[in-house]
Amino acid sequence: MHVAHGRGSLPVDPWSVREPTLDLAGLGRTESLFALSNGHIGLRGNLDEGEPHHTQGTYLSGFFEHHPLPYPEGGYGYPESGQTMVNVTNGKLIRLLVDDEPFDVRYGTVLRHERVLDMREGTLQRWVDWVSPAGRAVRVKSTRLVSFAHRAVAAIAYTVEAEQEVRIILQSELVANEAPPEVDSDDPRVAEALDNPLVAVGQDVEQHGSVLLHRTAHSGLHLAAGMDHDIECSRQYDVENEVRQDWARTTVVTILRPGDKLRVVKYLGYGWSRTRSDPALRDQVAAALTGAKYSGWDMLRRAQRDYLDEFWRAADIEIDGDPVLQQALRFSAFQVLQAGARTEGRAIGAKGLTGTGYNGHTFWDVEGFVVPVLTLTAPDAAAHALRWRASTLDRARERARTLGLAGATFPWRTIDGDETSAYWPAGTAAFHINADITRAFELYRWATGDDGLERSVGLDVLVETARLWISLGHHDAAGRWHVDGVTGPDEYTAVVDDNVFTNLMAAANLNAAVGACTRQRRAARLLGVGEAEIARWRRAARSVHVPFDAKLQVHPACANFTRYAEWDFEATVGRYPLMLHAPYVQLYRKQVVKQADLVLAMVWRTDAFTAEQKARNLDYYERRTVRDSSLSASPQAIVAAEVGHLDLAHDYLHEAALVDLHDLQQNTAHGLHIASLAGAWTAAVSGLGGLREDGDAVRLAPALPGPVRRMAFGLRWRGALLRVEVTHEQVRLWLPDQPGASVPVLLYGEEVKVTDEPVEHPVRVPEPLLPRPPQPLGRAPRPAAIAIDHPA
Amino acid sequence: MHVAHGRGSLPVDPWSVREPTLDLAGLGRTESLFALSNGHIGLRGNLDEGEPHHTQGTYLSGFFEHHPLPYPEGGYGYPESGQTMVNVTNGKLIRLLVDDEPFDVRYGTVLRHERVLDMREGTLQRWVDWVSPAGRAVRVKSTRLVSFAHRAVAAIAYTVEAEQEVRIILQSELVANEAPPEVDSDDPRVAEALDNPLVAVGQDVEQHGSVLLHRTAHSGLHLAAGMDHDIECSRQYDVENEVRQDWARTTVVTILRPGDKLRVVKYLGYGWSRTRSDPALRDQVAAALTGAKYSGWDMLRRAQRDYLDEFWRAADIEIDGDPVLQQALRFSAFQVLQAGARTEGRAIGAKGLTGTGYNGHTFWDVEGFVVPVLTLTAPDAAAHALRWRASTLDRARERARTLGLAGATFPWRTIDGDETSAYWPAGTAAFHINADITRAFELYRWATGDDGLERSVGLDVLVETARLWISLGHHDAAGRWHVDGVTGPDEYTAVVDDNVFTNLMAAANLNAAVGACTRQRRAARLLGVGEAEIARWRRAARSVHVPFDAKLQVHPACANFTRYAEWDFEATVGRYPLMLHAPYVQLYRKQVVKQADLVLAMVWRTDAFTAEQKARNLDYYERRTVRDSSLSASPQAIVAAEVGHLDLAHDYLHEAALVDLHDLQQNTAHGLHIASLAGAWTAAVSGLGGLREDGDAVRLAPALPGPVRRMAFGLRWRGALLRVEVTHEQVRLWLPDQPGASVPVLLYGEEVKVTDEPVEHPVRVPEPLLPRPPQPLGRAPRPAAIAIDHPA
Repeated sequence: MHVAHGRGSLPVDPWSVREPTLDLAGLGRTESLFALSNGHIGLRGNLDEGEPHHTQGTYLSGFFEHHPLPYPEGGYGYPESGQTMVNVTNGKLIRLLVDDEPFDVRYGTVLRHERVLDMREGTLQRWVDWVSPAGRAVRVKSTRLVSFAHRAVAAIAYTVEAEQEVRIILQSELVANEAPPEVDSDDPRVAEALDNPLVAVGQDVEQHGSVLLHRTAHSGLHLAAGMDHDIECSRQYDVENEVRQDWARTTVVTILRPGDKLRVVKYLGYGWSRTRSDPALRDQVAAALTGAKYSGWDMLRRAQRDYLDEFWRAADIEIDGDPVLQQALRFSAFQVLQAGARTEGRAIGAKGLTGTGYNGHTFWDVEGFVVPVLTLTAPDAAAHALRWRASTLDRARERARTLGLAGATFPWRTIDGDETSAYWPAGTAAFHINADITRAFELYRWATGDDGLERSVGLDVLVETARLWISLGHHDAAGRWHVDGVTGPDEYTAVVDDNVFTNLMAAANLNAAVGACTRQRRAARLLGVGEAEIARWRRAARSVHVPFDAKLQVHPACANFTRYAEWDFEATVGRYPLMLHAPYVQLYRKQVVKQADLVLAMVWRTDAFTAEQKARNLDYYERRTVRDSSLSASPQAIVAAEVGHLDLAHDYLHEAALVDLHDLQQNTAHGLHIASLAGAWTAAVSGLGGLREDGDAVRLAPALPGPVRRMAFGLRWRGALLRVEVTHEQVRLWLPDQPGASVPVLLYGEEVKVTDEPVEHPVRVPEPLLPRPPQPLGRAPRPAAIAIDHPA
Repeated sequence: MHVAHGRGSLPVDPWSVREPTLDLAGLGRTESLFALSNGHIGLRGNLDEGEPHHTQGTYLSGFFEHHPLPYPEGGYGYPESGQTMVNVTNGKLIRLLVDDEPFDVRYGTVLRHERVLDMREGTLQRWVDWVSPAGRAVRVKSTRLVSFAHRAVAAIAYTVEAEQEVRIILQSELVANEAPPEVDSDDPRVAEALDNPLVAVGQDVEQHGSVLLHRTAHSGLHLAAGMDHDIECSRQYDVENEVRQDWARTTVVTILRPGDKLRVVKYLGYGWSRTRSDPALRDQVAAALTGAKYSGWDMLRRAQRDYLDEFWRAADIEIDGDPVLQQALRFSAFQVLQAGARTEGRAIGAKGLTGTGYNGHTFWDVEGFVVPVLTLTAPDAAAHALRWRASTLDRARERARTLGLAGATFPWRTIDGDETSAYWPAGTAAFHINADITRAFELYRWATGDDGLERSVGLDVLVETARLWISLGHHDAAGRWHVDGVTGPDEYTAVVDDNVFTNLMAAANLNAAVGACTRQRRAARLLGVGEAEIARWRRAARSVHVPFDAKLQVHPACANFTRYAEWDFEATVGRYPLMLHAPYVQLYRKQVVKQADLVLAMVWRTDAFTAEQKARNLDYYERRTVRDSSLSASPQAIVAAEVGHLDLAHDYLHEAALVDLHDLQQNTAHGLHIASLAGAWTAAVSGLGGLREDGDAVRLAPALPGPVRRMAFGLRWRGALLRVEVTHEQVRLWLPDQPGASVPVLLYGEEVKVTDEPVEHPVRVPEPLLPRPPQPLGRAPRPAAIAIDHPA
């Protein structure tokens, strides 16, 4: 029996994720792991025949429905309208009838069921050998792709092969308004808004396909979904098309003899718009289908491979000695690409387009964790993400005005740019998102060497966020600049004074605005920025207050933090995440940290801390950080590596990279943790590689933990591809693509000129100041060494 | 025309509130002002004939319906079920038909319409001379009372007198499930729960009356409402009784000639229970009606007067020179009595039983402001209120366990003892309510000299709240004891560290527990209190951290407060209350105070501040307190008087006392501000009278503002009635009731022995250290002098 009913493990393979046996109980997880996306269209890894499933999912970036946000006790400025990603018209469906018996893995006998996500090909392949309850045996093979090259297109090649003579009926479908997803609210109106979210506005049927046109009931978005087919069969077959308001069906019927095959290539086209007319949308989808059909399956596959080959040249991290990590890092980079490749004017969601977790919203972690990885690996995708953010600046200005603040404040969670966060202490108050966005713009400018993005849209963002900070902060009687009553990344302490992370990031935001306005004096003047305003920004940034506990020789995460009561970790063993077992009123006032906050400050503002402070701070916060957020392990890995705890860094790197492959948060079924996966890439490159890219020269300081014999990675830096290879002994750097070019690199603090000829340098292993710190009871990361010895 | 359509003013009268002309636009306000209640039954001042009305209201203390509390983003420990006071079966209704035309003040001609709330009689009287559209003239007089003597009984004497021959049909009714009240939620399920909240379970009709039995759909409370009648008429009349599930009607029909009268006395009986059977409830109400009818109208009135005479002997404050204040203070004391007189096992709501504001919930202000007034004027009522609170101790223990805390924590808002606050930073986090409750127990013990309440229920409350504080607070490395991350009375700064009010009140709570356990060693041991625990309480109380800003020489309301940015008051002129115009995230982090917090600490912990600190602190916080809460003016009056700003105290005293008579918050229509009214009594007695009752001897330090020529008031102190009379020159103290008795009083700090012979002492006027402080722009209190010159 090749159907399992437990949490199946996935064997380790360097370039693919393979499920050797169908795990029915784990369908939710594999639907997320096997989701395909190009950042515009997302198809969950649902079975072709639609059932069984955990959550049917077909998503379009930025396509959502509104719903009310009810508050038992409301407050001024609370967002009144929520947004939820909609499960759009499902084009993945291919139902099969074998002598009138529906192909369903829950019935009959499954002799083989194998799925492979191929990360070089960019496809999901599936093989099923099935014997129907009546004893008819068929072999099904399907290969699915969502095209990176053609953003509106997905395709499925579906082959049935008969072992006896059987009548085969294949129904290829488009279905709108499938059963709604689970809803993250107890308000009946939310579920109502998502029950049958699509209103039919038109449909078309053509020779081998159909188009369905719908709109959302409340958010006013219009959608077209179409399918077309190439059919090949060694026998005669009939084709029929039907269409209704909420479904379209292309039926192929034939009789196969032993060895005969029916092969159907299904092309899918999707388009949506708030402004374009339904006929225009219909034509847009028809054109996408025409183009796809003209290319044909083989060309689509080749273009997919070419796109990925180019991506992997920079993004691939090679790992020797740790095959688990090798696979997980490739999975991480692949998913970051899937989430962000072709968003072009839309937000990247925290789960990409892999599931309905967080309602499809984007958060700070996209600019904080995802965009910086894209910047170094697929800079065009990064630019699109940043342009989307900038396109929402007017909404951010409006939000700031609502809150009585100057400039602009970007939403904590949103799909279209409007704030939809319904718990302000961990939403609106997390103003750091503005500085995180600014940092992503700065990293982009540093890494690409291109200030075109800044000139076209970035300056405005930098100026308006600088104005925000000035209105949020204030100088005390002694001139020190404080930001009071806001929330940093750690959501177990909220609405605090002088959060070190926020204060330092705000200062960086102000300095970035100063820099941009200095580079672009005329444009800045047009935005009303005069010398006096720049001087205010400079003064605030220069006099930012950074609390320090001189007695403990560590930075309190915020004012008073190191004076707070300690959390009783012994009493909460097995009760994680803590927020499901303890009220905010307890969490906020104690020394318990959900996710790296001060530690993240030491990565993103690495310049603001001495080496000793980094060592002591890490030691202090490791003992108090429970990592109830998947965003935590990555910065912890980076600082652990920097202060010399390479094994700890390795453990955290595993945790970040395996968050979904090992379902560490037990919610992979709701979608992948894209920012954690991006963080894994960064934890490898900035942790073990020591990369710091926040300046004019790349800085590197590689050092490997024991089991990792060799690591090689690439970066796109100012038009060049920089490759780095590290062993325990030596670092090699070179520019494989640019003969004659040269890039200065600060390697272990010393300038090295990197050219197409590899330059070699002995590795310097950092000497830890303190012993490896412990974590709260039961919250130590799983040792990487165990994972290596017991893969999966 | 004696019907007005604007905000009618009410003439000043020392012992009544009189509406000379019906103000249709102000019905909501007069329904609240003319509400009658004995603390068990509350009847809004609706017109007898039911229409027009703002809000129909008949309330029973503790009778509520459950409804869901939906959260767009929930959290651990959030209450899931709300509670809302239900408008129960309306027995006030007496409809009148004059020759078939319904008596309705909106039609025909109203020649006279006058209503008088008589605060000595405890009745609401109404006179209407009406000419029907057809030209028939009648005189209606009704007198309504809710009996203080018979808690389950209300009664209405209704007389119609004819000026021409007319046929009169009088319909006396009981009506359940009237139109629901406005709902303070945007969740449709809340409105749903309150739409037709009563499910009929039985009905009875008797000779001259009926009983309706209902239950609530969700909260499982059963209700019986009954009516009976005495009918007198100089002409022959017929009577008919009808009853349906949701209504009962007694109809009297007669023909009156000029000068003839029909007089109906309607007796109402109410009872409710969670546990008693419907037959038992029916019989209970029938018995109440039988008793009332047996007494008859005149006896009910006499008992009402007797009850009030006894109350006024202690509670009355006589004021010469300020008739506006004279009336308002009597109104205040009367309403405090109406809210609390006969609750007996149920909570006192923030609005008493006068309207649906705050859903009928009780808050900290009941024990903080209302119960202390009852303690000095009607100690039995105070004891009932405290016994109710103690009866919910198990729920408070359960709530503490949910929150991971020791001991017990009482709910921020509730009807039955379960927490229903849906915004935790201004609900659950306001742990000070526990210390406020403890203070009310302590005041009761001091004022009555009786430790029976402490012995029977108080000790448990003191011990469990002490345990709560120990689990909330902690000692820092230097041994100082802090309470972090909680909210004090000022709701414009929340979830803060070392709120001075909270810390000082927590210390008092701990000391009170120490005292109680020392007095009752055996009982304490049975509660598991050992010497070690008492030592912990002592140590925490002794080492409580009270932040002080040495540079400014004032106490910050909480850690960092005096360092926060100032609020831009010029930018918010006319935008009050601020919470409707600014988000919490702005309010919390700036120096803007909704309501007295540090100033209240200086009243309730008067011992913890020097005279100079009081003067400087008041000066500092006056400039930053906007009084968006009606609870603020009273403590500000008290401290203003103490530090010598007698005119400012006078202004605030007016504000507290006139909150409803002048509808200062523009929401009197939703019910009276009982705690503000209680605060007015206290502001007079503790402000101008200088009373401090928190110790073994009464302390007094009277001093009057210019316009007040004389003030006289009483206190019930340890079984005696202490009367105090103050002029600008002299203070007189005596015990009118107890020849031979003697009470020690600290007058201006010097011990005086008070007996039945008046003792006289010259007045000492305090010398202010600083000039009278200003308030935020536009937020100065209305000068009392203007109110005196322009009454109403």
